[in-house]
Amino acid sequence: MPKLTEYNDMNPRAKAVVEGIAQARGIEPANINNVWKALARHPSVMERFAAEMKAAFAPGKLDPLTKELVYLAISIANQCDYCIASHGTMARQKGMTEEMHEEFMAVVLAAQKGNKITMAYRVPVDAAFEEK
Amino acid sequence: MPKLTEYNDMNPRAKAVVEGIAQARGIEPANINNVWKALARHPSVMERFAAEMKAAFAPGKLDPLTKELVYLAISIANQCDYCIASHGTMARQKGMTEEMHEEFMAVVLAAQKGNKITMAYRVPVDAAFEEK
Amino acid sequence: MPKLTEYNDMNPRAKAVVEGIAQARGIEPANINNVWKALARHPSVMERFAAEMKAAFAPGKLDPLTKELVYLAISIANQCDYCIASHGTMARQKGMTEEMHEEFMAVVLAAQKGNKITMAYRVPVDAAFEEK
Amino acid sequence: MPKLTEYNDMNPRAKAVVEGIAQARGIEPANINNVWKALARHPSVMERFAAEMKAAFAPGKLDPLTKELVYLAISIANQCDYCIASHGTMARQKGMTEEMHEEFMAVVLAAQKGNKITMAYRVPVDAAFEEK
Amino acid sequence: MPKLTEYNDMNPRAKAVVEGIAQARGIEPANINNVWKALARHPSVMERFAAEMKAAFAPGKLDPLTKELVYLAISIANQCDYCIASHGTMARQKGMTEEMHEEFMAVVLAAQKGNKITMAYRVPVDAAFEEK
Amino acid sequence: MPKLTEYNDMNPRAKAVVEGIAQARGIEPANINNVWKALARHPSVMERFAAEMKAAFAPGKLDPLTKELVYLAISIANQCDYCIASHGTMARQKGMTEEMHEEFMAVVLAAQKGNKITMAYRVPVDAAFEEK
Repeated sequence: MPKLTEYNDMNPRAKAVVEGIAQARGIEPANINNVWKALARHPSVMERFAAEMKAAFAPGKLDPLTKELVYLAISIANQCDYCIASHGTMARQKGMTEEMHEEFMAVVLAAQKGNKITMAYRVPVDAAFEEK
Repeated sequence: MPKLTEYNDMNPRAKAVVEGIAQARGIEPANINNVWKALARHPSVMERFAAEMKAAFAPGKLDPLTKELVYLAISIANQCDYCIASHGTMARQKGMTEEMHEEFMAVVLAAQKGNKITMAYRVPVDAAFEEK
Repeated sequence: MPKLTEYNDMNPRAKAVVEGIAQARGIEPANINNVWKALARHPSVMERFAAEMKAAFAPGKLDPLTKELVYLAISIANQCDYCIASHGTMARQKGMTEEMHEEFMAVVLAAQKGNKITMAYRVPVDAAFEEK
Repeated sequence: MPKLTEYNDMNPRAKAVVEGIAQARGIEPANINNVWKALARHPSVMERFAAEMKAAFAPGKLDPLTKELVYLAISIANQCDYCIASHGTMARQKGMTEEMHEEFMAVVLAAQKGNKITMAYRVPVDAAFEEK
Repeated sequence: MPKLTEYNDMNPRAKAVVEGIAQARGIEPANINNVWKALARHPSVMERFAAEMKAAFAPGKLDPLTKELVYLAISIANQCDYCIASHGTMARQKGMTEEMHEEFMAVVLAAQKGNKITMAYRVPVDAAFEEK
Repeated sequence: MPKLTEYNDMNPRAKAVVEGIAQARGIEPANINNVWKALARHPSVMERFAAEMKAAFAPGKLDPLTKELVYLAISIANQCDYCIASHGTMARQKGMTEEMHEEFMAVVLAAQKGNKITMAYRVPVDAAFEEK
């Protein structure tokens, strides 16, 4: 198991990151997820990841659930167990119903198949798909 | 380059699949994408993939653009050039603006980073993310 | 841990899938593998995967052990621990001896090396390997 | 494009490797595949890979076509275009018919789906699959 | 092919990023690499990637060549052709000799093998490797 | 869990490999890492991997820590938990400080991002990066 640093034992830079996340989520800093406890030893990596996550999930043209589904799709393709568990939970919190989850998985698996088929059969890109 | 079979030269089972897709898209069978021309030599694989794609993109709880973004996310994670080109085109046809594309890429890249961070730091799954 | 649904608690569609698999394998439905217990919440995904597996392993020109070795090779390349454990077991049940396993692993590892070498050295495909 | 070294321009160690392969295949050293022309700059990598390939494909308990199919499966999972092209050609030379290819692809795609399903649903390994 | 935007046609935010990179490398903005021309349509992604690259390659405890080798290793594992070509070039510019390249490839290939072996044989982590 | 074979129960070929490694590391054969206990059932795979590791880490132009960082980078990209744990430990034993680890991770994550960006935006390789 990795060395997880609890909030109280973190250095000031790590504490500041955790406090920002905790405030945005309305939770106590002590209840921060493990990923941040693991990153606390490397404050610069932690700060950059927290900033990137905040920007990616900032309000915009795509709704929050769509963004979670995109994040979850990447995590499944990359086979990241932690990310599937955490962002699966978040997707449900943001409105993913069982029925939507089932549809989502159908698209994920169709994409996986399409990806491998085009590689295995060495399909050349259609001219219509090339940007000018 | 793989052996691409033009519609007119396909066997009956392959022709039937192409006709179904062409009709649903409102195009001529002769203008079918390369992936189907490549699959024509293996009708059973072709039929199964066509049926899976049709089911995955059938009307449901997730809107068509969300499904395209999930498909595109998987294709980027898997580095399938053909799929990125084709489903990027389809996403734009279904309403993905440049602004939405930029937001989408921000989520994709944040997810990629999150995936690698949790693996590299060997982060254990939080109890809160485990289903009972 | 994911929510596993035991056979007795499954919905009718899931039960039907499990019964079909159990009958084909000569086991009790209650002894079905975990993958099916996990999929029971998404009957459409379950039905499609069961049908695809049945078709892939139907009697044909390739013998059953060869098919298991192909399945196992994909699972190792994709680093799917569950699949390595389950299809490794099945390969042994279908006749894979320790000696065959050792030969198989030699091919798997040679292929892994060949794959990375051709990418790392950016080797262009020989004209002799292109289909006309 | 990578720097490909033709047989006549290779250093003695690279030439020796090529001659061994050419003799085993009954071809002229000048007609060696591109992968060996690309590796010629790194004789130690070349020697080790040639030895590993020779050992992996040496006569044994698995027949030559089965070994090619395992190699091809790994190459598809890893999305190595060169390897799919070269070992697809070799599989056909060793007896893979169109019908066998179609069956092979069905197993490859079923495995891909099984791999992603077990990861996405976070399926725990059955006790029956654990070695004691 | 993707839409590449030449420096003169870029929006102000993209131009600013390119100018910063060009200045640091001592080149003309018009001679910037393709990756930046492709990213110019998404200034926020471009700015974030440029900042991350600058921070990663800032002077520190690891020397510049070591960093390039780490970048190249990741690119080979991920099979990114563009990255292998560009960072292979940069590694040579920063002092990688042919002999070092050969040693580097030996480690890359040994690691690839070690990775697949530990997964395929399902090796449990030694207690000695666990952080307390 | 895989069947791990303790040193005392290994066959002569496996024992010989373990003794060579133990002697080089100055440890008792009984304290060999799990990966070798798992490989003991397949002596030919074991011998080849041990020889490849020995050659890759033999004294040369790249220093030992650089080689460990390259190995670790590959293991992170491939998401091999065992390898991250074991070679992370070895990197620290060979001099990787916390500060160096943090810099290393910054490069690893920048590379991951660069890899995905160039694929997602389908960036063509610059002529300057092509070898003649």
